[in-house]
Amino acid sequence: MTRAPLWDGLLLDARLATLDGAGYGLVEDAALGWKDGRIVHAGPRDALPPSDGPLATQVLQGGGRLVTPGLVDCHTHLVFGGDRAGELEQRLLGASYEEIARAGGGIVSTVRATRQADAASLLAQSLPRARALVADGVTTLEIKSGYGLDFDGERRMLQVARQVGASLAIEVRTTFLGAHALPPEYAGRADDYIDAVCQWLPRLHAEGLVDAVDAFCERIGFDAAQTRRVFEAAGALGLPVKLHADQLSDGAGAALVAEFGGLSADHVEHTSPAGVAAMARAGTVAVLLPGAFHVLRETKLPPLEAFRAHGVPMAVATDCNPGTSPLQSLRLAMALACTHFRLTPEEALRGATVHAARALGLEDRGRLAEGLRADFVLWNAKSPAELCYWLGGNLAASAWSGGRQLY
Amino acid sequence: MTRAPLWDGLLLDARLATLDGAGYGLVEDAALGWKDGRIVHAGPRDALPPSDGPLATQVLQGGGRLVTPGLVDCHTHLVFGGDRAGELEQRLLGASYEEIARAGGGIVSTVRATRQADAASLLAQSLPRARALVADGVTTLEIKSGYGLDFDGERRMLQVARQVGASLAIEVRTTFLGAHALPPEYAGRADDYIDAVCQWLPRLHAEGLVDAVDAFCERIGFDAAQTRRVFEAAGALGLPVKLHADQLSDGAGAALVAEFGGLSADHVEHTSPAGVAAMARAGTVAVLLPGAFHVLRETKLPPLEAFRAHGVPMAVATDCNPGTSPLQSLRLAMALACTHFRLTPEEALRGATVHAARALGLEDRGRLAEGLRADFVLWNAKSPAELCYWLGGNLAASAWSGGRQLY
Ligand SMILES: [Zn+2]
Ligand SMILES: [Zn+2]
Repeated sequence: MTRAPLWDGLLLDARLATLDGAGYGLVEDAALGWKDGRIVHAGPRDALPPSDGPLATQVLQGGGRLVTPGLVDCHTHLVFGGDRAGELEQRLLGASYEEIARAGGGIVSTVRATRQADAASLLAQSLPRARALVADGVTTLEIKSGYGLDFDGERRMLQVARQVGASLAIEVRTTFLGAHALPPEYAGRADDYIDAVCQWLPRLHAEGLVDAVDAFCERIGFDAAQTRRVFEAAGALGLPVKLHADQLSDGAGAALVAEFGGLSADHVEHTSPAGVAAMARAGTVAVLLPGAFHVLRETKLPPLEAFRAHGVPMAVATDCNPGTSPLQSLRLAMALACTHFRLTPEEALRGATVHAARALGLEDRGRLAEGLRADFVLWNAKSPAELCYWLGGNLAASAWSGGRQLY
Repeated sequence: MTRAPLWDGLLLDARLATLDGAGYGLVEDAALGWKDGRIVHAGPRDALPPSDGPLATQVLQGGGRLVTPGLVDCHTHLVFGGDRAGELEQRLLGASYEEIARAGGGIVSTVRATRQADAASLLAQSLPRARALVADGVTTLEIKSGYGLDFDGERRMLQVARQVGASLAIEVRTTFLGAHALPPEYAGRADDYIDAVCQWLPRLHAEGLVDAVDAFCERIGFDAAQTRRVFEAAGALGLPVKLHADQLSDGAGAALVAEFGGLSADHVEHTSPAGVAAMARAGTVAVLLPGAFHVLRETKLPPLEAFRAHGVPMAVATDCNPGTSPLQSLRLAMALACTHFRLTPEEALRGATVHAARALGLEDRGRLAEGLRADFVLWNAKSPAELCYWLGGNLAASAWSGGRQLY
C-alpha cells in the first residue's frame, strides 16, 4: 500500500452530476476529492486510490444526495441603487411604459439612485441579492456596470462588484457595460457618449476592474456602428466582448458580436438564422434570459432549434436587474427556461454550469473533473431534474468555491 | 402618568401595511405591540399609550422596514411522498401525459409513494417544504389530504399535517380531500369510493384531524352528485366545505360549493358568470392558484373582472403539490398572480392575508389590528409591492406567530 498524498477534502456517498461529456454524467456512489482548491477525484468511490490511512483532512458524507458543479450566473446587473417595485405597481394599475418614463421612472431612475449611492451603500444594497444567489447554488457570478454612465459611477459599480466577490468568497467576473443606455446629459449626442465610454475603458481596465466588455445594441440602445467602436476599444486592450443582442428586434447583434469572436450574445430572441450560423462559426454562446422574457410577457422565443442544430451552446442566467428581471435565483431562471423555452432540465443545468462558464471565458469550472476548480454544491435532492422542478425552496445544502466551504 | 400594563413585545420604527380597511393601510413611523399572543397596538408610534417605563418586556427596532400580517397559504397539498421531477424531464423530452400515466406516473405515483411512506418519513419529506414557506413569510398553512385515498393513508397525512404545525410552531389548518382522485382499487366504482370517503370523514373528524372538507369536482375527478354527497357528509358534522372547481372545464363547481355556503372555490379558471354571482351571494372566496396555471401553461384566465365587479374576495395560494405546482414560496405565487393574472400587488397581498384567512374561515388574522392574533412578518423591504416584485431572494427578516418569534 502506498500512502496517497493527503487531500484537503473528500465527499463520500454522493450522487455526482459531473456534466462532463454528454448527458448529466451521473456517477452513483461517488466520491469527490479536492486539494489546493482543485478537484483531484470526481468519480466512483471504488476508484479512489488505495490508501492505508484517511485520504483527506476532512471527510464528509453526502447521504446519497446530488452534487453538481457550482452554478455560474453569467449575466447579472445586480449592483444598483434603489428598486423599481413602484413601477410594477403602476403598470398593473394601468400606466404605460411611456407614462412611467415621463414620471421619471425606467432606467433613468436606477441611474439616479445608483449615482447617488456611495460605495458602502451600493454594497449594502447589492450584497443581499448576491447572497440569495449564492444560497441557491451560485459560486461564480458575473456583474455588469451600466447604471453609473459616468466615469465615477461606472468605476464605483465595478469596484463594488469586486467587493461583493471578496465579501462572499466567491469569484465575481466584472463586465464593463458603459454602453448600456444614454445618460440624460448626453441626450442627442450618442456618438459623443461612446467616445467617452471608449476613453473610460482603458482607465478602468488599468485598475483591474474589467474582465469583459458588453453593450446594449438595440433600437432603444446603441446602433451597430457605435457597438463596433466599443468592441474595437475592447479589442485594443485584449478584452473579450459580449452583447445584449436582438432582444426586442433583429438588429444583427448576434452576428456583430460573433464577428468579434465574442464570448456570448445575450437575450437573442430575435436572432436570425444568419446570426445563429455566425455564432456557431465563432463559438459564441447564446445566453438565454427567461426572467426578462417572463416579466415582460414576451412571446417571441429565441431560435432554440437553430441553436441546437448548429451546436451553439445555450447558457441560462438570471439577468438580475431592477427593471425587467428582479430575479434572485438562478434555479428559478432554469425553471423558467424549462417552462417558457421548453429547455430540458439537462439543457438548463448545462446552461447554468458548463455553458455559463464558457460565456465568461472560463475553462476551469462548470464541470466536475480532475484539475478543475473545486466549485460544487451538495443539494437536498436526488435527481438533477429537481433543480428545475421545485419553484422556490431551500435546495442547496452546502456549497464550495475553490475548495472552500461557503455554507 | 399612569403605568400601562406591560406588553410582551413592541416593535418600533416600522412601516406597517395593516391591510385593515381599503388599500394597504400603510402607517409610517408605526409601532406594533402584542401581549398574550394578540395585537394590542398597530398604529402610529405617537399614539402609543403614555407610560413612565418601558411598555413591553421586549422592545425591537424595525429599522424603518415593512411589516405585514403573516402570510396565509390557504391551499396546499404539501404532505406527500416522493416527487415527480422525472415527469417534468419526460414531458420536456416529448412524452405525453398519457404516456407518462401509462408508465405509472401521474398522481398514481404520488399515491403509491405516500402510501408506502410511514408517518416519520412523510414528516421528514414534508417539513422542508413547510420550512421554505415559513421562511418566506407564511405563518398559517392549510394542508390537504388526498394522496392516501384509503383510511389509513388519509389519516396519516392529516396527522402529519398537524405534526408539521407543531414542529414549526405555526398553525396548520387541515382539509380532508379524500375525494381527490379515484384510487386504483376502486376503478369503475366511483360511487362506492365516495361511500367510503363519507364513512371515513366522521372517524377522522372525531380524532380532531379535520378543519374543512374539499373535493376535486372535474370531468377527470368527481361529478356534481358525488361532490354533493361529500358536502352533505361534511354538513352533517358542521364542517365547512371548499372545492377544486372549474379548473379545466366549467363544471358548475363554484355554484355548487356556494350553494353549500362554502368557504372557497379554488382554481375557478372556467367559472361562469352564474358561478361568480352565486359565490358573491354566498360570500365564497375565489382562491387563485397561479402556480398550476404557470406550470401547465394554461391560457384561460379566471373571470377576474367579474370577481371584482361582484365583490368576490380573491385569495392567492401556492397549491404546493408534486404534479402541477411544486411551488415552495407564497411570494412567488403572488408574483405569478401579478404576471399572469395582472393582479395588482395590493390585490396579491390582500389575497395572501385577509382573503386567504377568510378562505380558511379564520377571522382572527390576516390584518394588523387590535385584538387579532400577533402573526406578522418584518421584511427586508420598504414597500409592499416589493413582495411581488422580487422573484426569489430572502425578503422575510423575522416572523411571529401568535406573538412567538419564529425566526
Ligand atoms: Zn442584461
Ligand atoms: Zn389543489
